[in-house]
Amino acid sequence: MHVINPIGVIHSPHTSIEGMPIQPKGAADIAGYVIIDKQYQDGLRDLEGFSHIYLFYSFHQASRTELLVTPFMDKQARGVFATRSPLRPNHMGMSIVKLTGIEGNRLSVEGVDILDGTPLLDIKPYIAKFDAVKDSRSGWLQASDADISAKRSDERFR
Amino acid sequence: MHVINPIGVIHSPHTSIEGMPIQPKGAADIAGYVIIDKQYQDGLRDLEGFSHIYLFYSFHQASRTELLVTPFMDKQARGVFATRSPLRPNHMGMSIVKLTGIEGNRLSVEGVDILDGTPLLDIKPYIAKFDAVKDSRSGWLQASDADISAKRSDERFR
Repeated sequence: MHVINPIGVIHSPHTSIEGMPIQPKGAADIAGYVIIDKQYQDGLRDLEGFSHIYLFYSFHQASRTELLVTPFMDKQARGVFATRSPLRPNHMGMSIVKLTGIEGNRLSVEGVDILDGTPLLDIKPYIAKFDAVKDSRSGWLQASDADISAKRSDERFR
Repeated sequence: MHVINPIGVIHSPHTSIEGMPIQPKGAADIAGYVIIDKQYQDGLRDLEGFSHIYLFYSFHQASRTELLVTPFMDKQARGVFATRSPLRPNHMGMSIVKLTGIEGNRLSVEGVDILDGTPLLDIKPYIAKFDAVKDSRSGWLQASDADISAKRSDERFR
């Protein structure tokens, strides 16, 4: 068992799951902010030099686990680890967002596909030299960028 | 509080922290495998279509938190959230590895910069349409690809 204590809270205009963008790529214009607990504020030093950051968070409204789920971008059931569904064991989510500023313990971000009030578990910098993957293959996901941007959430993963 | 139960174990040739590659880019030839608990095996369906996956894990040998750390690739202290150091709150790690095969509950992977016996917390597919970031800026990290690949760990983050 690994006990995790949230280190802050993510704020966004998304107050209900229904109608939310399903990925940051569908939320490019959507601004939000993150409040880090004051005790961790010193850990933000130097983060402002990064244009993008990973937010790790708890899918706090997911109350069950399903091993097979039908993703928003598909019509058939897939193994949950082959999707980004919240219904995974441990209910951990990840979004790569644009960092637009830091003031004290408040981070301004853009591209927020996260529910307002979501507990934050970790922040890491996006580092292209570590994280960019060339020539990857994305299995069942055949959607176009336009489809991904346009798709909106419903209640299926609550 | 968010309680997380490991869903499996990551196996690698790295039996001690000292001398480990610090990122998957420095471990391209290093093969390892992941054993998922049998109860979650059905969640792996369709994952094989993805060439790369995120492994999320517990830095189980990190026993303390430091808000300022000196990264392997730098000579001065940085805010821990601007680094990938294990000494972060919640001790959560992430690596993007190449998926080379799945047999039952065993995943073969390459590019393993993870200690043998590390508890696995989650797997997500790498999806270029979601995760590739164009024109990112990587703050303090000025190292070349060759420097990153060559760099090896020491005991500083235990």
